[in-house]
Amino acid sequence: MTIGVDFGTLSGRAVVVRVRDGVELGSAAHDYRHGVITDRLPESEDPLEPETALQCPEDYREVLRTAVPEALRVSGVSPGQVVGIGTDFTACTVMPVTADGTPLCELPDLARRPHAWPKLWRHHAAQPEADEINALAAERGEKWLARYGGKISSEWEFAKALQVLRDDPGAYERAERWIEAADWIVWQLCGQETRNVATAGYKGIHQDGAWPSTDFLAALDPRFAGFVRDKLEHPLAQLGERAGSLTAEAAAWTGLPEGVPVAVGNIDAHVTAATARTTGPGRMLAIMGTSTCHVMNSDVLAEVPGMCGLAHGGITPGAWGYEAGQSGVGDIFGWFAESYVPPAYHEEARERGLSLHELLSDKAAEAPVGGHGLVALDWHSGNRSVLVDHDLSGVLVGMTLATRPEEVYRALVEATAFGTRTIVEAFTASGVPVEDLTIGGGMVRNPFVLQVYADVLGRSLKIVASEHGCAVGAAIHAAVAAGAHPDIHAASDAMGRVRAETVDPDPARTAAYDELHAVYTELHDHFGRGGSRSLHRLRALRNSVLTSAQGGAEKGDR
Amino acid sequence: MTIGVDFGTLSGRAVVVRVRDGVELGSAAHDYRHGVITDRLPESEDPLEPETALQCPEDYREVLRTAVPEALRVSGVSPGQVVGIGTDFTACTVMPVTADGTPLCELPDLARRPHAWPKLWRHHAAQPEADEINALAAERGEKWLARYGGKISSEWEFAKALQVLRDDPGAYERAERWIEAADWIVWQLCGQETRNVATAGYKGIHQDGAWPSTDFLAALDPRFAGFVRDKLEHPLAQLGERAGSLTAEAAAWTGLPEGVPVAVGNIDAHVTAATARTTGPGRMLAIMGTSTCHVMNSDVLAEVPGMCGLAHGGITPGAWGYEAGQSGVGDIFGWFAESYVPPAYHEEARERGLSLHELLSDKAAEAPVGGHGLVALDWHSGNRSVLVDHDLSGVLVGMTLATRPEEVYRALVEATAFGTRTIVEAFTASGVPVEDLTIGGGMVRNPFVLQVYADVLGRSLKIVASEHGCAVGAAIHAAVAAGAHPDIHAASDAMGRVRAETVDPDPARTAAYDELHAVYTELHDHFGRGGSRSLHRLRALRNSVLTSAQGGAEKGDR
Repeated sequence: MTIGVDFGTLSGRAVVVRVRDGVELGSAAHDYRHGVITDRLPESEDPLEPETALQCPEDYREVLRTAVPEALRVSGVSPGQVVGIGTDFTACTVMPVTADGTPLCELPDLARRPHAWPKLWRHHAAQPEADEINALAAERGEKWLARYGGKISSEWEFAKALQVLRDDPGAYERAERWIEAADWIVWQLCGQETRNVATAGYKGIHQDGAWPSTDFLAALDPRFAGFVRDKLEHPLAQLGERAGSLTAEAAAWTGLPEGVPVAVGNIDAHVTAATARTTGPGRMLAIMGTSTCHVMNSDVLAEVPGMCGLAHGGITPGAWGYEAGQSGVGDIFGWFAESYVPPAYHEEARERGLSLHELLSDKAAEAPVGGHGLVALDWHSGNRSVLVDHDLSGVLVGMTLATRPEEVYRALVEATAFGTRTIVEAFTASGVPVEDLTIGGGMVRNPFVLQVYADVLGRSLKIVASEHGCAVGAAIHAAVAAGAHPDIHAASDAMGRVRAETVDPDPARTAAYDELHAVYTELHDHFGRGGSRSLHRLRALRNSVLTSAQGGAEKGDR
Repeated sequence: MTIGVDFGTLSGRAVVVRVRDGVELGSAAHDYRHGVITDRLPESEDPLEPETALQCPEDYREVLRTAVPEALRVSGVSPGQVVGIGTDFTACTVMPVTADGTPLCELPDLARRPHAWPKLWRHHAAQPEADEINALAAERGEKWLARYGGKISSEWEFAKALQVLRDDPGAYERAERWIEAADWIVWQLCGQETRNVATAGYKGIHQDGAWPSTDFLAALDPRFAGFVRDKLEHPLAQLGERAGSLTAEAAAWTGLPEGVPVAVGNIDAHVTAATARTTGPGRMLAIMGTSTCHVMNSDVLAEVPGMCGLAHGGITPGAWGYEAGQSGVGDIFGWFAESYVPPAYHEEARERGLSLHELLSDKAAEAPVGGHGLVALDWHSGNRSVLVDHDLSGVLVGMTLATRPEEVYRALVEATAFGTRTIVEAFTASGVPVEDLTIGGGMVRNPFVLQVYADVLGRSLKIVASEHGCAVGAAIHAAVAAGAHPDIHAASDAMGRVRAETVDPDPARTAAYDELHAVYTELHDHFGRGGSRSLHRLRALRNSVLTSAQGGAEKGDR
């Protein structure tokens, strides 16, 4: 058996998996006690800057202490049968630590300093720094920029580190290492620093064997010149390699024997490709939850417009790993269901024993394609792929006084499917054909959404069978690190979990969706490619009035 | 005293008004027993065609029998003190009758024939006929077409009559007169047919002393050639004239003495100009309810894009009366409040003793202009003025996951205000300046909406003070017909009811709204003036799939 531990945004989950066939023998989850820290630090009254999202490292250790032993207990597997442990993490979740891996926020004199704490992936306060990095990289023609669809994100390592330097130079100075939580948790398990090639490639701007140059960093800020050399640089490990062996301390936390092989760190979305049996070239995996992450291996190196990142070995050793994304998917459905559905629907859902999503899906499912007369743009959280523009916002057209909530809901679901179709077509048009598409993530539990996607895309969808695709993926990587399978492809073949049945398109509905997709594309290009600056004007006006309403936000004054 | 009786869509209301100063002494309403007949005729199981909206003439008489005596009773006024009675009606609500004014639907052999019944203004099943009339008029260069903003409506007399001819030629043949309910009710009161210049001008295509020509009618359909001559033609009476005297029968219904002067028929929106003291040139009255009707007198004859109609003497004798309209206003707010507001808001409204509209307004009112980042187009019922396009539909842009229901609500309110601003600017740009603006209708009870309009328009708004602006307007016309005032202007000065306080704009908010209005205008022109056919494509797709889903609607097969 191996154990996979998935560190999510709000909780961690451990799963015990049989190496022979991937059967899940037991699983347990643990909610982070501090969740996402956005308003104030623990035991502090000082408000945090807007867009701040921090986490507490002790919450991560607590998952090792609680969820791992509990999963073992539930599985009935004895610790001695476990041959490896692997992890995956949200990314880019990144933190400043000392040379021995101690998080700065655990040093008494720094505990009250927000910039000493791990910055969660969705910490968006470093947008000015990201803008600065992008502008300078474009100006200097840095060739790595194209690997990220032309823009690095405010979520990533360099933007966040530069924010720390600018806003709290003292904390920046004290950080001896700047490390992804994905690598830090492995450090906790095996007692030595490793760096995985995936977070380095996708979140750390490591391309073709090099980091951004000292020149570039110095041009950003002279104090930033040594950032790579001092805080980042370290040999990179391939995914599925063994990082080390479980320390006595970590063995005590987890209940596993000391010395168990520990796999190198990995990214939650990427590790799932092994679960989905999509490690072969041209096999796209869309992990659909609150947002969607698309990962795909290819033998081809190409520049796909709006891709989030491209890294060699970034998903599986030996292949070019592409990543694309939709910023808002399930959270758009959730936003609508939570705030825009009237009491009668809530009552009906209660009476029928359905969730609101199930009720809305049920009411919407039977209508003919286009019968609602609506098209939406799925940009409530901006657009990552293919436009890379987070100042965009949602659009809904076609409402009449007869438009019902389930019709708007369906239009939102369709919009995200059109968004996926736009991404798939961009890959194909760029010479990186998408041969097949597998769906993972929480949305696999929603048959209505899956059917809309199959119809909109006009292709059969394979569906990840596990409820815990990330944790199982981590366990598959643990099996490789432990030598139980020769490589990730073989381990994925043996241990991957995909439903026997595909979700198939209805040709008539697919044909009808072509018409709606054409309208979507017209609106997409009009609002997203410069035909209209309306959305940007609205965003600028909003930001400006909200800033003055707050009497000048800190950010504006910096 | 005079009595005004307002015949609305769902009920009629009588009010007793003092001629000297317009004080309302008593009022009473009566709901139509049959309301709006849309699904099946009374005592019939046969379904009516979609978009059908009929009424029962006996319901109108019942208002005379119940609301008038009750208003008298409440007022404490003795019948002998009443010097005149006036009426106003929804328009174009139109009906086929015999030569003595008997509605065809009251003839036993025609009672089961839908086309023998009065067609309510919002009967929209005659759209194909309206399209035909517009196409032929455009082709032949009929000069009256420009007086209606380039399109006559499916709601009007000719389209509805042509539908009767096409769908039930037998009923068409039996109609000896085709008459507005506004004129029919006066016939009921004074026992003789009169025709008012307002419905003739706005709903009957009577312009410059002539009706559409026999040639034109014959080209539409040879059987339609005699329509004007046989069923419509009659001397036209000016507004405020005396149509005749109360008959013994009507005296018995109403409790008034026989012989009381009866004013000629009038349109509900237009009669309100007298209540609002806006009978002078350049004084626009916007009657805001579920939809908005704008009426304004001018000394100038001009063609304003998208106006609904223009008739000399159509509002007040001696002036050019302009009418414009917004198809959806309060009903858009109602649609949203009814179906898109979550349970927590309903609960909060209950706890605070507010209506949902009040709660949403309260939550939305304090935010800075543009803080929600949204702009909507108020086209949920299409656009009357200035685009005259009922295939348009609603648009909302700028949503994020943080967008709250009260923000969408406010964006919808703002959209209708931008729509009014667009109309006001079209008048001014066409050489018919809008000197001032008075608001009437049910929306005067909503201070939030009024403030948004003042801010968006950047001008002080006068507000009609009466709850029963239409019925009071009818009473003012009755006073003129009775000779109690020399003309409508004088009667309006004496009896009109306008609040002492205006609603004034805040200059800073007005300046901020200029920016949002610019975005509204960009979207308005893009979706409404040919930049994008998206909304039309969606409507066409919707209509086509819904028609095939119904297995071929009757209308399509005709």
